[in-house]
Amino acid sequence: MNKQQLFEQIKKKQSFLCVGLDTDVNKIPQELMAFEDPVFEFNKQIINHTAPYAVAYKPNTAFYEVYGAKGWQSLQRTIQYLHNNYPEIFIIADAKRGDIGNTSANYAKAFFNTLKADALTVAPYMGKDSVEPFLNFEDKWVILLALTSNKGSQDFQYLNVGERMLHQQVLQTATTWATSEQMMFVVGATHPEELGEIRKMLPDYFFLVPGVGAQGGDLQAVAENGLNDDCGLLVNSSRGIIYASNGSDFAVRAGEEAKKLQEQMAELLRNRGL
Amino acid sequence: MNKQQLFEQIKKKQSFLCVGLDTDVNKIPQELMAFEDPVFEFNKQIINHTAPYAVAYKPNTAFYEVYGAKGWQSLQRTIQYLHNNYPEIFIIADAKRGDIGNTSANYAKAFFNTLKADALTVAPYMGKDSVEPFLNFEDKWVILLALTSNKGSQDFQYLNVGERMLHQQVLQTATTWATSEQMMFVVGATHPEELGEIRKMLPDYFFLVPGVGAQGGDLQAVAENGLNDDCGLLVNSSRGIIYASNGSDFAVRAGEEAKKLQEQMAELLRNRGL
Repeated sequence: MNKQQLFEQIKKKQSFLCVGLDTDVNKIPQELMAFEDPVFEFNKQIINHTAPYAVAYKPNTAFYEVYGAKGWQSLQRTIQYLHNNYPEIFIIADAKRGDIGNTSANYAKAFFNTLKADALTVAPYMGKDSVEPFLNFEDKWVILLALTSNKGSQDFQYLNVGERMLHQQVLQTATTWATSEQMMFVVGATHPEELGEIRKMLPDYFFLVPGVGAQGGDLQAVAENGLNDDCGLLVNSSRGIIYASNGSDFAVRAGEEAKKLQEQMAELLRNRGL
Repeated sequence: MNKQQLFEQIKKKQSFLCVGLDTDVNKIPQELMAFEDPVFEFNKQIINHTAPYAVAYKPNTAFYEVYGAKGWQSLQRTIQYLHNNYPEIFIIADAKRGDIGNTSANYAKAFFNTLKADALTVAPYMGKDSVEPFLNFEDKWVILLALTSNKGSQDFQYLNVGERMLHQQVLQTATTWATSEQMMFVVGATHPEELGEIRKMLPDYFFLVPGVGAQGGDLQAVAENGLNDDCGLLVNSSRGIIYASNGSDFAVRAGEEAKKLQEQMAELLRNRGL
């Protein structure tokens, strides 16, 4: 999917919501355990009830790898289900990969060819040749970690490296590797002021913003600091949506939570004239 | 496996060799394609011929994920085979994971409980709470990226962050998170001088050293700069061993290459009185 197609979906659905599929069998309704693949069954129902309100889904690989090969099968099924039933959806594999070139090339094939995700989150520490192999795929995206939503973002990402902080240096260097048609950045909702600074630095790039909801980030502040002329934001919510209920109404309740966020987003987009 | 057990293996085998199982079906002998799981079959034969000369194996997850769920099955089989047949071997999952705490906890379960690896490579960018969940497992290890072997290590790892470079800051900060009984660091063989500096900073920690062989690192220089009183090094070779031949003698030739490195290592250990 290219940037224009993503923007069109955002305008059409009046939403920049990404639903995080961090599916944990210990938190899903007991009744789903009767299915052959409870994780996939949960995801399928969550998707069916939230898709009208979301433009993107983001399964995090940790929640699938914990079940080994079986978990990867659930992940493959989930992405296939999205492609078959909601071809307009942008699919992000939240995997935070990155390795030497030869190895990253294999990760790129794993996520873009085998799994058929549209985008992959990538860690920046190993530099240019660890990121470049992901850029050789048409209409596929690298979403590079810049300023993450967690407390540990304080440990290294704010270090001063000359005239700027490390996360700003990562952003500046990485924009010489790829345009806003191929790269996005992770900027946590828990840092709204920095998000505003980063938006000034990078007027054209999309940001994937985790941390709204369970982690305490505020949607209004994110929108004020991060929206640009073609939206430029994908705001993720995981636990706040998918675990809205652990009863048999889990999917309906997830849909309601997604709708609430979508309605707030619609207003924020309207205020911006989008 | 704890540090003392690892050191005893090193003394017994007179080797600090780690064999990288970066198995690519496009590079393995055609005859193996007749097996139900060619990747596992290749690994099994490589292991059988190299195990007398190696103390550790390091499958890199990229080379398995590229085949989806099937690849994870090959990875699980490989690790199970090592446990069943070579219980003295130290198994490193080279996965370079790291995420917010809740997510890293799932990666920890994935690699330490489900896959049963002894150690996992972890990326430092997200800071303390992204690493801590991996430290809650007895006799399991975090191997944190510090100075990687690739060209891209120049992009961020050498940035000055006050009195030191970023990779030195990562090392210094991370040693406040875990002792040398739970944490090792990745330091590329392509930076022998920096390895010497890092050894002075951290006399007690083990370093996992990739980059000998195909990437151009030199074993002699690594040993001179990195050996400590309980060896303190695991030197990895992947392509130089496992692709020594792509004929039906591939496993025998891999064994010969591993033996050559082990003999050099034995001499380096003897010179150090180990």
